[in-house]
Amino acid sequence: MTKESFRDAVIKTLEKRFFYTPSFKIYGRVAGFYDYGPPGVAVENNVLAFWRQHFVDEEDMLEVKGPCVTPEVVLKASGHVDKFTDLMVKDEKTGTCYRADHLLKDHCKDKLEKDVAISSEKAAELMHILAVLDDLSAEQLGAKIKEYAIVAPDTKNPLSDPYPFNLMFATSIGPTGMSSGYMRPETAQGIFADFKDLYYYNGNKLPFAAAQIGQAFRNEISPRQGLLRVREFTLAEIEHFVDPDDKSHPKYSEVSDLEFLMFPRKEQMEGQSAKIFRLGDAVSEGIVNNQTLAYFIGRVYLFLTRLGIDKKRLRFRQHRQDEMAHYAADCWDAEIESSYDWIECVGIADRSAYDLRAHSDKSGIPLVAQEKYAEPKEVEKLVIKPNMKELGPAFKGDQKLVIESLEAMDEKEAMEMKVILESKGEIEFEVCKLQKTVTIKKNMISIVEEKTKEHVRTFTPSVIEPSFGIGRIIYCLYEHSFYTRPSKDEEEQLNVFRFNPLVAPIKCAVFPLVQNDEYEKVAERISESLFAAGIKYKKDITGTSIGKKYARADELGVPFAVTVDTETSVTIRERDSKEQIRVNVDEVAKLVKKLSKGRTTWADISQKYPAHNTNLADCAKDLAVRMLTSP
Amino acid sequence: MTKESFRDAVIKTLEKRFFYTPSFKIYGRVAGFYDYGPPGVAVENNVLAFWRQHFVDEEDMLEVKGPCVTPEVVLKASGHVDKFTDLMVKDEKTGTCYRADHLLKDHCKDKLEKDVAISSEKAAELMHILAVLDDLSAEQLGAKIKEYAIVAPDTKNPLSDPYPFNLMFATSIGPTGMSSGYMRPETAQGIFADFKDLYYYNGNKLPFAAAQIGQAFRNEISPRQGLLRVREFTLAEIEHFVDPDDKSHPKYSEVSDLEFLMFPRKEQMEGQSAKIFRLGDAVSEGIVNNQTLAYFIGRVYLFLTRLGIDKKRLRFRQHRQDEMAHYAADCWDAEIESSYDWIECVGIADRSAYDLRAHSDKSGIPLVAQEKYAEPKEVEKLVIKPNMKELGPAFKGDQKLVIESLEAMDEKEAMEMKVILESKGEIEFEVCKLQKTVTIKKNMISIVEEKTKEHVRTFTPSVIEPSFGIGRIIYCLYEHSFYTRPSKDEEEQLNVFRFNPLVAPIKCAVFPLVQNDEYEKVAERISESLFAAGIKYKKDITGTSIGKKYARADELGVPFAVTVDTETSVTIRERDSKEQIRVNVDEVAKLVKKLSKGRTTWADISQKYPAHNTNLADCAKDLAVRMLTSP
Repeated sequence: MTKESFRDAVIKTLEKRFFYTPSFKIYGRVAGFYDYGPPGVAVENNVLAFWRQHFVDEEDMLEVKGPCVTPEVVLKASGHVDKFTDLMVKDEKTGTCYRADHLLKDHCKDKLEKDVAISSEKAAELMHILAVLDDLSAEQLGAKIKEYAIVAPDTKNPLSDPYPFNLMFATSIGPTGMSSGYMRPETAQGIFADFKDLYYYNGNKLPFAAAQIGQAFRNEISPRQGLLRVREFTLAEIEHFVDPDDKSHPKYSEVSDLEFLMFPRKEQMEGQSAKIFRLGDAVSEGIVNNQTLAYFIGRVYLFLTRLGIDKKRLRFRQHRQDEMAHYAADCWDAEIESSYDWIECVGIADRSAYDLRAHSDKSGIPLVAQEKYAEPKEVEKLVIKPNMKELGPAFKGDQKLVIESLEAMDEKEAMEMKVILESKGEIEFEVCKLQKTVTIKKNMISIVEEKTKEHVRTFTPSVIEPSFGIGRIIYCLYEHSFYTRPSKDEEEQLNVFRFNPLVAPIKCAVFPLVQNDEYEKVAERISESLFAAGIKYKKDITGTSIGKKYARADELGVPFAVTVDTETSVTIRERDSKEQIRVNVDEVAKLVKKLSKGRTTWADISQKYPAHNTNLADCAKDLAVRMLTSP
Repeated sequence: MTKESFRDAVIKTLEKRFFYTPSFKIYGRVAGFYDYGPPGVAVENNVLAFWRQHFVDEEDMLEVKGPCVTPEVVLKASGHVDKFTDLMVKDEKTGTCYRADHLLKDHCKDKLEKDVAISSEKAAELMHILAVLDDLSAEQLGAKIKEYAIVAPDTKNPLSDPYPFNLMFATSIGPTGMSSGYMRPETAQGIFADFKDLYYYNGNKLPFAAAQIGQAFRNEISPRQGLLRVREFTLAEIEHFVDPDDKSHPKYSEVSDLEFLMFPRKEQMEGQSAKIFRLGDAVSEGIVNNQTLAYFIGRVYLFLTRLGIDKKRLRFRQHRQDEMAHYAADCWDAEIESSYDWIECVGIADRSAYDLRAHSDKSGIPLVAQEKYAEPKEVEKLVIKPNMKELGPAFKGDQKLVIESLEAMDEKEAMEMKVILESKGEIEFEVCKLQKTVTIKKNMISIVEEKTKEHVRTFTPSVIEPSFGIGRIIYCLYEHSFYTRPSKDEEEQLNVFRFNPLVAPIKCAVFPLVQNDEYEKVAERISESLFAAGIKYKKDITGTSIGKKYARADELGVPFAVTVDTETSVTIRERDSKEQIRVNVDEVAKLVKKLSKGRTTWADISQKYPAHNTNLADCAKDLAVRMLTSP
């Protein structure tokens, strides 16, 4: 089975059983939008509930929820307004837009696959382009598109030069049209803006983590790869605020012995592949920057594998220096292998103090933490003393804001100003809040070094951010859970999702073996007891054959199926082994609950209850069906 | 205490304990956006979990989840692009926008309250305006604003005439700027667009209900009333699809004996007030249109009161004929009384076949259900027979779409066409899919009555829609749960939320009586057992006095507080009665779990466990604290 035909089988099953469907289908579809149907919603709800339990509850995080609509100023501060772009080219005649890197990538791949006469030099060149694709500038991409004479794929028309397209959905807040906003591209910025409230809520203590689950938006140029690249998606993000001088983690020892596939930048640069590391070793060897970052890597590993992600197809890839933002201390992606190759599903980054500083600078509100020194500390400090007599007449009403801005300079900036004032006598100085530049003269301020006693240390916390693309994780889980097996008569392939009970949209199916009142009453009694136990079940009292009912349940990944074939005892079938045991009617709900909550295993249960021989039983059942349904 | 000072006390407590806060506060606020902090998120999660249990699980609904970004065509079909507007006036000099009805309302209220010399005629006129405010046209509003010489409240500048402002946040999908979209104003339209998939998923059977929880957006002109009128909010909507010829409900008898405040349109028109009805009587007397609508009214009543809404401050108000959409069969709002008056929190409408028909018409995809007749039915039917010889040459490539459109006419349209063709010989006919009008001549088609046998009945289902404004319900719940009581020394008023355990953000507080290692270890053991039992708890090991710790927990609405005062047994305190019982350490988690899940009551428990005399105990505790903390 090729990757593509495997993927087709998965997607066909998912769409057939309404795990998802393209949105607004009756109007012809709009790329990049999907609706989850009932099983898809149930899976997402299960994944999010487990996320909350595993992260928010176990780590005592502060969960917040903010709006999707975000004023421009917030995303200007974060850098999204200026930098959240992809490079785009336009069909010069029709105006159709394409992602420039996609076209170049397709061209290279196509050549490499189909051009048998390609020289080894040319092949190496194309391979190199594929490797550095993400790092090419607009000019470099444009040059390559010209060099290779790449044209619009649909029309063969010439293409424009690449230019940046901002990926945020723009909107306008309020009726005047004067207040720009965007649909948030991530949930993180809302958390940063709330830092002061969160810090206070946490008793002004570090470290702590805030978490947010919600929709995020990305106006992709031309979405491809189905559920993996969509225009609206569920993000679950954690911002862990920590003292930059102490990134140890109290629960680090709980994860340090974990062993799994890691792909440090050194191995990537040397052309090696990912290999298994003990997490603790990766920290002590300096591969992972710090304990807190490692702790989250370990917790993410546990989260994903407990959901059912295959650990052999999960790796943690470190960002190379050249792909990491300049401020980041270290960054790792949890990548999951799917039919579309390795897919980034969780990013775990130590973003240093960048985000809080950016919002402090833009808003003028210091987003800082404080730590009381055991003893007051004597420090030499550059102090800025405004000379009111000179400043007042020069700036009048703006005086206060100018002074505020002067006082907000850090040590380095003040030192530079001091040097320039002394040499040149004046300096141009930008006052953010006035949105203009003013001239500061030497006699307006004095910058002097003073000895003072400090009682508290004030600092900007570092942020360690694990960010989860929930839809991507779920899609990969679908692929890792899917398999086919022949039907009993081997005439067709049956589809199965081997979801574990934690994830399964429905935990238990209930059907009477044949349509009769007595069995249906028992099925109803069992359904009621499952409902009372809080177990999601599905009752099927249609006249379909028992084999078809099992197949339908398997396609939804239902782990257990109860068949009512007597009024006192019933069979429970496990989906993957197809083993059956016989259980008293009154015990069913308790047993299924235990299995669903992971308090017992099938292996354990199947020892304790009498097996129900499938083949023999099937014969007997078929016979019974024929007897009961024949006229 | 006035309404306003009560409201201030509630809001102050909510903001102080970070139930919520205005969003993006560090940038100055943007009206109509709020962030929920940890207790607010926990309350919302609890309310939504109970909603899912009470509606989706108990009624076996199909939960779906679609995107917030919605293409224009969908909201064109639903009527939102044309009609989802408020009337706005502009300050003619500054451009500041106001809701026209708000200004008129404020003017009338102000006059009535402050003008002591007002004539009784004038007063009656103003009262009448307040009563019909929602129904005034742009022209009527404009005339009144002119007549009363109302000016811009901030500047006293003259105002423009009122004109409609669409309340949807507009955006653009994809890079070309050619594809308009909006942030959805409700979640319902996504469900209607998925009707075919849902109907198929449900085995092509009616009735069934689909449900969706998600964000919705409304670009209010000038948001007021805090959490009650916001620009982004969580909606939970149900679309129950039912045969228009049979709106009975199998579980109707489960709610028909409920009695609660109802406010039918008759009582409203006659100036009476809401009164208590037995729901079953309201149906049999023809006040509520049908059983299914009544069933949902009853279920909504149970939902709200179980959350903790005061049933004396909850009423179901029927829409008057003149406020109801022309297609609606009946419509009731669950209104909750708050300090802002009666607030619409849930709308429960029988929208007939309107929505599905609107999307059928616009998309050309029939959104219908079918029912097999027991026996084939002989019917007379208008049949449209195209004459290919004439149609072909006339329409060439468009032929197929023209014929499709002709065949899609309903009986009435076809009859009209027949009449016109016979009298005039030709007719102008709009072909939606071609987006143009063509001329149909008499010889191109024949429209004849034929007897045929029909095996299935095809019909558009009716939709009964309960739609929940979750944020509004939660805000009203805050008000209904809030009270103050004097501190022990009566020096200050302490704030309490009497949340029931279902809703409470934290179920149990745990504190050692004094800071010492032994007690802290016990507190940790209890915390771990609470966590294992899945109970949200909060441990407080700060040095604050026990009284302050209780007060802090009361402000968060924590129903139970465990105080560790020995190493073997502890006290559990109930929030509202302040009663305490003594319980063994190992029993705490089990007991708190039972109380939280509603499996037992405090009254019951306090019989079984020894009471802990508060006053005596407090003295002893205070003494102990002093002894242990003095040097």
